[in-house]
Amino acid sequence: METYKHGIHAYLEYQKQHPFTGKPGELYDPANYILSLGGKRIRPVLVLLGYGLFKSDIENAMPLAHAVEVFHNFTLMHDDIMDRAEVRRGEPTVHQKWNDNIAILSGDMMLVKAYAAIMGLKTDDATKVSLSQEFGRMAEEVCVGQQFDMNFEDKSSVGKDEYLEMIKLKTSVLLAYSLKAGAKLGGASSEDQNTLYEYGLNIGLAFQVMDDYLDTFGTAENFGKRIGGDILENKKTLLWIEAQKRANKEQKEALNLWYATTVQTQTKIDEVTKVFKSLNVDQYAQNIMNQYFEKADDIINALSNRIDTKILKELASDLKQRQS
Amino acid sequence: METYKHGIHAYLEYQKQHPFTGKPGELYDPANYILSLGGKRIRPVLVLLGYGLFKSDIENAMPLAHAVEVFHNFTLMHDDIMDRAEVRRGEPTVHQKWNDNIAILSGDMMLVKAYAAIMGLKTDDATKVSLSQEFGRMAEEVCVGQQFDMNFEDKSSVGKDEYLEMIKLKTSVLLAYSLKAGAKLGGASSEDQNTLYEYGLNIGLAFQVMDDYLDTFGTAENFGKRIGGDILENKKTLLWIEAQKRANKEQKEALNLWYATTVQTQTKIDEVTKVFKSLNVDQYAQNIMNQYFEKADDIINALSNRIDTKILKELASDLKQRQS
Repeated sequence: METYKHGIHAYLEYQKQHPFTGKPGELYDPANYILSLGGKRIRPVLVLLGYGLFKSDIENAMPLAHAVEVFHNFTLMHDDIMDRAEVRRGEPTVHQKWNDNIAILSGDMMLVKAYAAIMGLKTDDATKVSLSQEFGRMAEEVCVGQQFDMNFEDKSSVGKDEYLEMIKLKTSVLLAYSLKAGAKLGGASSEDQNTLYEYGLNIGLAFQVMDDYLDTFGTAENFGKRIGGDILENKKTLLWIEAQKRANKEQKEALNLWYATTVQTQTKIDEVTKVFKSLNVDQYAQNIMNQYFEKADDIINALSNRIDTKILKELASDLKQRQS
Repeated sequence: METYKHGIHAYLEYQKQHPFTGKPGELYDPANYILSLGGKRIRPVLVLLGYGLFKSDIENAMPLAHAVEVFHNFTLMHDDIMDRAEVRRGEPTVHQKWNDNIAILSGDMMLVKAYAAIMGLKTDDATKVSLSQEFGRMAEEVCVGQQFDMNFEDKSSVGKDEYLEMIKLKTSVLLAYSLKAGAKLGGASSEDQNTLYEYGLNIGLAFQVMDDYLDTFGTAENFGKRIGGDILENKKTLLWIEAQKRANKEQKEALNLWYATTVQTQTKIDEVTKVFKSLNVDQYAQNIMNQYFEKADDIINALSNRIDTKILKELASDLKQRQS
């Protein structure tokens, strides 16, 4: 792999060659459908990069890369039901295109298939068991994160720390697992595995804070979905949490009035964004994000004198520059 | 273990000592709740019986027994959402007591925990990998069976063979897995494992056909739920399928008229049951059931000259006599 983009390309080729097959179609088609909708494929690429730090026969890591992408898409399929989301990446969500029952069951099957992919790896049994145990711990954390996220909807206030803990569980642990698992399969020492896990956690946190930022302050043509979606859904993002802290009485009233409604107008987006901007929470989110990227940088530097981490840094750099 | 009832008792003790713990409660409480609702615990007991045929330290098989019971309850939790069932064992279903989202996510967590229990067994890694691979194949089959079952609702006619294939996938493979997995953990040869798997499949098929029979022809005080539930839900059970074959024009019209409605009256139950009875499909179902029990008997006899299968036969005999 010369660049991580080669990794994405190779993974997509693998995915194309390994569709879900079987009857009935209602069980397997939705899995192929959601995987076909695209996405950055950052999780499978992290597996390949983690593996590639220690071994060169990348093909061997493909089933593991597929496992994390299938798992990720299983969570999307179930989350979309829970969020009553109608659109994913410009196309109908699975429960919209089919129905809730099919989205539940097809997602269940995908979780089973993710484990099966790990068990099918060409490696020793001890590694399979270890990869599977850590996969399970990660999967449970993702469930915990999703439940906290749902609970936040009904809470009148959410603190910064509990918000960051939630996104760590819901998003970062899967990125961290992906990188670590790839490295483990590649034969990395426990110490290197743990270093890469910490690196992945910080990249993941930066990634999710950036998502929050772009959802409000990105540009629609780059972001690929409507700017302001989080505001319309009254989501208590980092922007919202910090704005609550910084707002004067009048601003606070304005924010809370808008978030007390389910109005879906551009005016709501514009007004809330205006308050956010006046409180500089856009800058605040960028600072937090940069802190995570810097922490990730520090962590990876501990490895860089022994291992060529160029590709990993290249990926982090592109993630930092991303507009979508 | 002197009788399988000791196994049930020991398992329930284990379950009580190993509740799900963690935050948030919305994720873990529903899992403890559904497990607390009771049930025959036939799956964990099959694990213990399979293990007990080869080893005596039953405690060692408890996490595996728990894994299959947790898995079974995960499927119940998700199936109840899909069926819009309001009551399970006389109590509100999880999605009724909490909501759909919590039932989806808590179920997902339980599936992850079932794998974790297998991975945590005190045995060699090769056995863990094998148990986990076969668990995955079984779990996928259960998903396939559930999807076929849902598809049958919209089909105008269902054949006997496809019905039996559906219940094999939806119900029997888990019973068969439970017995085989226990035996594998106990160190059984591949041949003995496969014999026990076949035995479990046949017991499972008999068990499910009996469920169909009791749902219409049981007595309410024994059965523990309303007699005729399948008829009210227009379920295409074995009774229905065979009645369709045996009915004259007039009877067929009556059956189809009732099943074209969503009427929830005792009259519907009485009228459909009357037709079933006049066509002797109650006897037919009992014959099919007995054939499976006899086949199971034949299969286990191949083992009985080497291994003491008394407890297994005792369980089968009690299942055959069961009224609930």
